[in-house]
Amino acid sequence: MEESFVPFRGIKNDLEGRLKCYKQDWTSGLRAGFRILAPTTYIFFASAIPVISFGEQLERETDGILTAVQTLASTALCGIIHSIIGGQPLLILGVAEPTVIMYTFMFNFAKNRLDLGSELFLAWTAWVCVWTAILLFLLAILGACSIINRFTRLAGELFGLLIAMLFMQEAIKGLVDEFRIPERENPKLLEFQPSWRFANGMFALVLSFGLLFTALRSRKARSWRYGSGSLRGFIADYGVPLMILVWTAVSYIPAGSTPKGIPRRLFSPNPWSPGAYENWTVMKDMLKVPVLYIIGAFIPATMLAVLYYFDHSVASQLAQQKEFNLRKPPSFHYDLLLLGFLTILCGLIGVPPANGVIPQSPMHTKSLATLKHQLLRNRIVETARKCMHNNASLGQVYDSMQEAYQQMQSPLVYQEPSARELKESTIQMASTMGIIDAPVDETVFDVEKEIDDLLPIEVKEQRLSNLLQATMVGGCLAAMPFIKKIPTSVLWGYFAFMAIESLPGNQFWERILLLFTAPSRRYKVLEEYHATFVETVPFKTIAVFTIFQTAYLLVCFGMTWIPLAGVLFPLMIMLLVPVRQYILPKFFKGVHLQDLDAAEYEESPAVPFSLVTEGELIRTASFADDGEILDGMFTRSKGEIRRISSLKVTSATATPSKEFKGTEIESPCFSEQGYSPRVNELRAGRRSPRNVGRGPFSPRTSEVRPSNLGKSG
Amino acid sequence: MEESFVPFRGIKNDLEGRLKCYKQDWTSGLRAGFRILAPTTYIFFASAIPVISFGEQLERETDGILTAVQTLASTALCGIIHSIIGGQPLLILGVAEPTVIMYTFMFNFAKNRLDLGSELFLAWTAWVCVWTAILLFLLAILGACSIINRFTRLAGELFGLLIAMLFMQEAIKGLVDEFRIPERENPKLLEFQPSWRFANGMFALVLSFGLLFTALRSRKARSWRYGSGSLRGFIADYGVPLMILVWTAVSYIPAGSTPKGIPRRLFSPNPWSPGAYENWTVMKDMLKVPVLYIIGAFIPATMLAVLYYFDHSVASQLAQQKEFNLRKPPSFHYDLLLLGFLTILCGLIGVPPANGVIPQSPMHTKSLATLKHQLLRNRIVETARKCMHNNASLGQVYDSMQEAYQQMQSPLVYQEPSARELKESTIQMASTMGIIDAPVDETVFDVEKEIDDLLPIEVKEQRLSNLLQATMVGGCLAAMPFIKKIPTSVLWGYFAFMAIESLPGNQFWERILLLFTAPSRRYKVLEEYHATFVETVPFKTIAVFTIFQTAYLLVCFGMTWIPLAGVLFPLMIMLLVPVRQYILPKFFKGVHLQDLDAAEYEESPAVPFSLVTEGELIRTASFADDGEILDGMFTRSKGEIRRISSLKVTSATATPSKEFKGTEIESPCFSEQGYSPRVNELRAGRRSPRNVGRGPFSPRTSEVRPSNLGKSG
Repeated sequence: MEESFVPFRGIKNDLEGRLKCYKQDWTSGLRAGFRILAPTTYIFFASAIPVISFGEQLERETDGILTAVQTLASTALCGIIHSIIGGQPLLILGVAEPTVIMYTFMFNFAKNRLDLGSELFLAWTAWVCVWTAILLFLLAILGACSIINRFTRLAGELFGLLIAMLFMQEAIKGLVDEFRIPERENPKLLEFQPSWRFANGMFALVLSFGLLFTALRSRKARSWRYGSGSLRGFIADYGVPLMILVWTAVSYIPAGSTPKGIPRRLFSPNPWSPGAYENWTVMKDMLKVPVLYIIGAFIPATMLAVLYYFDHSVASQLAQQKEFNLRKPPSFHYDLLLLGFLTILCGLIGVPPANGVIPQSPMHTKSLATLKHQLLRNRIVETARKCMHNNASLGQVYDSMQEAYQQMQSPLVYQEPSARELKESTIQMASTMGIIDAPVDETVFDVEKEIDDLLPIEVKEQRLSNLLQATMVGGCLAAMPFIKKIPTSVLWGYFAFMAIESLPGNQFWERILLLFTAPSRRYKVLEEYHATFVETVPFKTIAVFTIFQTAYLLVCFGMTWIPLAGVLFPLMIMLLVPVRQYILPKFFKGVHLQDLDAAEYEESPAVPFSLVTEGELIRTASFADDGEILDGMFTRSKGEIRRISSLKVTSATATPSKEFKGTEIESPCFSEQGYSPRVNELRAGRRSPRNVGRGPFSPRTSEVRPSNLGKSG
Repeated sequence: MEESFVPFRGIKNDLEGRLKCYKQDWTSGLRAGFRILAPTTYIFFASAIPVISFGEQLERETDGILTAVQTLASTALCGIIHSIIGGQPLLILGVAEPTVIMYTFMFNFAKNRLDLGSELFLAWTAWVCVWTAILLFLLAILGACSIINRFTRLAGELFGLLIAMLFMQEAIKGLVDEFRIPERENPKLLEFQPSWRFANGMFALVLSFGLLFTALRSRKARSWRYGSGSLRGFIADYGVPLMILVWTAVSYIPAGSTPKGIPRRLFSPNPWSPGAYENWTVMKDMLKVPVLYIIGAFIPATMLAVLYYFDHSVASQLAQQKEFNLRKPPSFHYDLLLLGFLTILCGLIGVPPANGVIPQSPMHTKSLATLKHQLLRNRIVETARKCMHNNASLGQVYDSMQEAYQQMQSPLVYQEPSARELKESTIQMASTMGIIDAPVDETVFDVEKEIDDLLPIEVKEQRLSNLLQATMVGGCLAAMPFIKKIPTSVLWGYFAFMAIESLPGNQFWERILLLFTAPSRRYKVLEEYHATFVETVPFKTIAVFTIFQTAYLLVCFGMTWIPLAGVLFPLMIMLLVPVRQYILPKFFKGVHLQDLDAAEYEESPAVPFSLVTEGELIRTASFADDGEILDGMFTRSKGEIRRISSLKVTSATATPSKEFKGTEIESPCFSEQGYSPRVNELRAGRRSPRNVGRGPFSPRTSEVRPSNLGKSG
């Protein structure tokens, strides 16, 4: 993305680009048929459950003024509007934790002001949203999204870890409160007697830890040994909502012997009580807010605007990473503009605004990649089998598959017909093995297995899945009687689960772990997926860098505890940008900073590009092994692909079938010097690290692009 | 062990053999100094905690007649006596679960008989013990231990899994009872009101699962990445008692807000109440038992005798496996005779008898192996360093180490001076690498690392550790006020822990898991440690065999639920012997049975012995990598060593340093055909499986003995 601050240019380009494919967005979705429901429900659960949890958190923090009803409504509304008139349909919108934190701060502020009080809280936040929208308009018009790359991994991962800490804090606060009398309840009720309170607290511990452990386990179901592939895939994808169902059911087991309020369940306002739905009409109260506070609303609005600018754009970037091979253009500026409109809208109807969410957005793209893969696969396997029946040679089979593949490429009106092909490397390997002209033997050439290696990753880009999932979230509002049955302790467990789930792939977290790793164990890190810096940067430097980052994180976290000034915590995150650009290079060598936290604006020292040595293979990402690699790729990296140092040889196939895209170079045997392949590669000379990435988390360190290698080797 | 039934001959040989080394047993122990306390405390905890748990189980099942006091007293007494006048000092004695089960049956029988009642229960069990002792004397005199090998893996592992199921059942029963009013308590107490009962139950769930998970995690501490080596070793060894302490402390956290009885803690009789210690004087009641019951006591006595014969001898065998390189002779017959005396003694003072226990006995030997290793290591490293200071060549360093090693071999009066040497293979490798004559460079030759590869496994065989640990168990009696603080739910969690801990290494369990493994995942089994049959026996045969074994297991388990006739469940186990010898060969091929359940009395088909190909290394067990391999070896195999199919290449060292004894042949690279080394080896021809093992669990399937290979290769 070129850096340009000409007003409206970014928005104009975005609109032009996306309008061209607007019609195709819809037809493509409809053509997928019922298969579109798989990614839809997957994302629906991944969206709805956090939104319900945030609703419960808000209910507690805002004395019941905002509840899950409002958060669900916001998510649904914003999601529907964005899917219809938004720029990038792969981006998922929802109410996110930073919004909840800000609203908490604002409520505590408003509650203690005599002129405001909690009655005018929503009116005041409506003004905050107005200011936020204005700021977002400005940012969008001026093309501020083009400098999002200034937020390097340093800032992004610190923010991610801060959110994880806040989740964990929420979980702990929630569990502790299960032992106490809730604030707005009648303390004389049976369920609030000391004995039942203690029992409720213990029950909450059981339910929340139960959910936490089973949910964490179910996520790894793809690599289980037991059960068929489809069962494992189902559990891995839908395990979390399943577990919430299961533990809700478990919470009913002692229903006979416990009072009605044990365990405590989701709060939802009684629709028949007056004032239950006051928020929808908050607009009429807006002029009651004193002018001083209207002006003062600018301060939290600035913070919100910063957070939304950051969150929305990074979520969009993560949903459009290079590995996905997307063909339609991005739309950062226009989407930010739309976000401004949505923010005003939400403020005016008294709900917290929604913005682009991580990790649901990359999850969405990933699930659509799987969908596309399935569609292509079926078609091409069919073609191949027909060909093989006619006793064709291996080369002819490949040709027919190639043809079928290109037929399935949806022509984009504005582009040249795609020159996409099935992956070269596998086909080349077959020709070097000299079997390309032999009649294909079906027992040797298993097209089902091969197809996973041949198909590159592609994504079914359309708007239907986004629209449907947002509608389903809206449907939750109708399902509130069922949602109210979920015990609050299950949601606290879910908060803890979200915190823990977000850790793998966060390099900051992994550096912290590295600090605790005994020196004699460090080789274990090298054996698994790891980032480049583990090998290239001296341990002491990594330690100092990490300790600095951790100290900064703790300061930010501490700020969120300060009652009023804490609302400025996003400033601290923003401060990391100049710190990274100007201060850190004074303390750390440029080449180390490049590995620890590569920034696009830094020129890396030019290093001659070495040829790939003969024993090394280039691998490309594929769907072999039930999508496990793909899982690992996106769970782990949030954008960066790591290198594998060891080679696990399976006795299942003779040819290495686990492939990985672009950044890995592996040799199947020890090279002569006796070093691991990684070290050899580094000794051979570093790859040129100049990358044109797309954001803080694009693979930029030591990336080898297959196209380059193909040409030079 | 030769099969011989000449009366008294076995006992005579045993006594002769052990008397020769009796003095050395003691001097060797004293010479170890304070280091002997490490294995002592390790085994003490491993003994005492189960014994306390069994005491609690007995307390519940015998209406409080027998409690932890009696089980601790029995373990201490029998342990002390055995360590002083027993044959094999490595064998640990303690009250075991089969005894508890039998006592439960006997109590339920006695309680419902008008002539007996629970008052004469202990008197009657005294008679049972008398009969049991007589039977044990008979068995010992007639040398029955020599046919213990008839109990193959089939019977042994089924029994092990049965015990695991009984443990799990006990844990579940205990937890369910935490929600109910206990039988012999006043139901009017505050802690038995419904709300507090529910709270207690939930609290019990939290404590027991907490202990279960943390204890299971702590066992794997050696392979953790975090923390220093000694910390990890400490946590792995003492993690379980630590966790019990921790969770006991946790149970006191809500002490302010809960009644005194929440959570329920260990029961111990009030020493001042009359009848609290009636059991010690049970002898005087023995003649009150009607003659009919005295004669009838023969039936449970038969069952107990069978169980003790089996348990005691197998525990002794496991403590003396070949891998340990023990030098002193075994003593099965004499130990069984002694067990008879101990049984009478225990019966006469009204405590349940103790017998040889698994897994504490092999754990004891293993900890003494570690001890010996440390003693040798220090001495030899010192010698090597001195030598290197004098600029010696590598060959000279090796020579001096060899000398120091042989000096440390304790001469046994009745044997030739030991011709033991440091392991040949490493030294040979150094000479082939041509560096044997070069001046040794300290940076290349790290003696600390090398020493672990050079030292073979040896065990410090002495009596002191056994005596000390038994005394400490006796000391627990004095510490009863502290032991009473342990919540019962923590013990139920410990039962579940014992059940789960016993599963890995049990081939029966692993075969059950294999049944559930998806066919596409089976290669994962081949990648890890696995037994031979996974590769050599067709899956359908494995399935049928396993289903048969599982059905038999369920029948045995079901029998333990039958109120009276259930006491005969050991008969079912014994029945497996003729079933295995006569019935199973009709349904399964001999060669398959050999792999699934090798029996010594079966002749295996003679197969030509192939030479080792050049690229293959013979590995020997060593203590490299913090004893992790050793851990894995004994945890996993209970005697059999499995093969590794994959090769994990570490970038830490150039030479493969993880070694394994005898049964593994690995080549560092793919062989030409592209198959894994395992398959190659099988294709080359099976090794001769005729082994002279020592019992059901000695490595007998497909074992390659290094001595043979040394001679032929």
